[in-house]
Amino acid sequence: MSITQKLQALNISLPAVATPAAAYVMYVRTGNTLYVSGHIAKKDGKPWVGQLGRDMTTEQGREAARGVAIDLMATLNAACEGDLSRVKRIVKLVSLVNSTADFTEHHLVTNGASELLAEVFGDAGKHARSAFGVAQLPLGSCVEIEMVAELS
Amino acid sequence: MSITQKLQALNISLPAVATPAAAYVMYVRTGNTLYVSGHIAKKDGKPWVGQLGRDMTTEQGREAARGVAIDLMATLNAACEGDLSRVKRIVKLVSLVNSTADFTEHHLVTNGASELLAEVFGDAGKHARSAFGVAQLPLGSCVEIEMVAELS
Amino acid sequence: MSITQKLQALNISLPAVATPAAAYVMYVRTGNTLYVSGHIAKKDGKPWVGQLGRDMTTEQGREAARGVAIDLMATLNAACEGDLSRVKRIVKLVSLVNSTADFTEHHLVTNGASELLAEVFGDAGKHARSAFGVAQLPLGSCVEIEMVAELS
Repeated sequence: MSITQKLQALNISLPAVATPAAAYVMYVRTGNTLYVSGHIAKKDGKPWVGQLGRDMTTEQGREAARGVAIDLMATLNAACEGDLSRVKRIVKLVSLVNSTADFTEHHLVTNGASELLAEVFGDAGKHARSAFGVAQLPLGSCVEIEMVAELS
Repeated sequence: MSITQKLQALNISLPAVATPAAAYVMYVRTGNTLYVSGHIAKKDGKPWVGQLGRDMTTEQGREAARGVAIDLMATLNAACEGDLSRVKRIVKLVSLVNSTADFTEHHLVTNGASELLAEVFGDAGKHARSAFGVAQLPLGSCVEIEMVAELS
Repeated sequence: MSITQKLQALNISLPAVATPAAAYVMYVRTGNTLYVSGHIAKKDGKPWVGQLGRDMTTEQGREAARGVAIDLMATLNAACEGDLSRVKRIVKLVSLVNSTADFTEHHLVTNGASELLAEVFGDAGKHARSAFGVAQLPLGSCVEIEMVAELS
């Protein structure tokens, strides 16, 4: 199955590419390496405001992280000029989870993104990763994820 | 206008290269990729102590981030043996903003660095980026920024 | 002295490679660059739970960071198929220190990892670095460190 077919089977349609919230660009390619800016979680097109351990459950955080992965794929798709088969490898994610000082399930929240990427890209979707709790995120968003990918 | 002329037009003179605060080096080059260590904000040569949302305004944070960008350019300049025209692209910034749990303008603080880099390097200065709030920074500094750059 | 001999001289035996706590892999290689996932500090095989500034001293944090460096070397060793002489350079560490809002010695904590890497790998062990305080870490761990390395 092609990446496009997998997305269809999962009933995922890629949204419009996110626009930068400030003075930066959504991705930069150097050689075959693509650096994708941190994408914040959104709900109905607006920042998904919340903090794990305060007003969101781990399951809601997973859902938010899965949504970020979809937005990251839309950006990847733009960087590949609409041909996601040019993604050779999802190399690394850094996952920033807006959380209180006593929330310790950042890895489970981040699985929402990691599992979807592995589902869509197969072995090429398996990535290195760091996940941790941050004091707060831009616009109050609950999760922000950045990505490094290898393109062919 | 050359990079040097742009810096002069902006009335910016690059400071001496920052020295590591601990057991690391300021940058490592691998292939054409330069990894620059996190640089903390300084004022009058000392760590610029403060926390956004507690005792600093967003505008002061912007100013601190702009100062970090100047220090990062000094390090870039050293890595390029004094020839900043060898910077092919500012690839990525990661911006760590020392902030309380209710401050949500990390992206505006970080613009202080991003806008200066775009001003000095033009299109080559437009970069991918993540910005977020951290619990605290080394020596109490208000902002820390690390960089990835592509050299020719 | 070879890397193996240096490890022996330091009385360090590399542990079994850490297994991912969630849906990711411990490292991904792209070209000659190796991205190593964030490794959390462990004690007696379990997450080393604690927070700097609350219930751990800087010296204990150093010890934890040193332990993470040993685990990172075990992962590096696996990526090099047991031949650590193939590590051309430790390029970068990102060190996430679980800390309160008033702890400011993340750089000293992180030295526990940085100094060991320089000791084992010599000049090839000198790396770029960022260190900062995070709100909390997966499983309550006190320190998490990720690495970028160049392999030959």
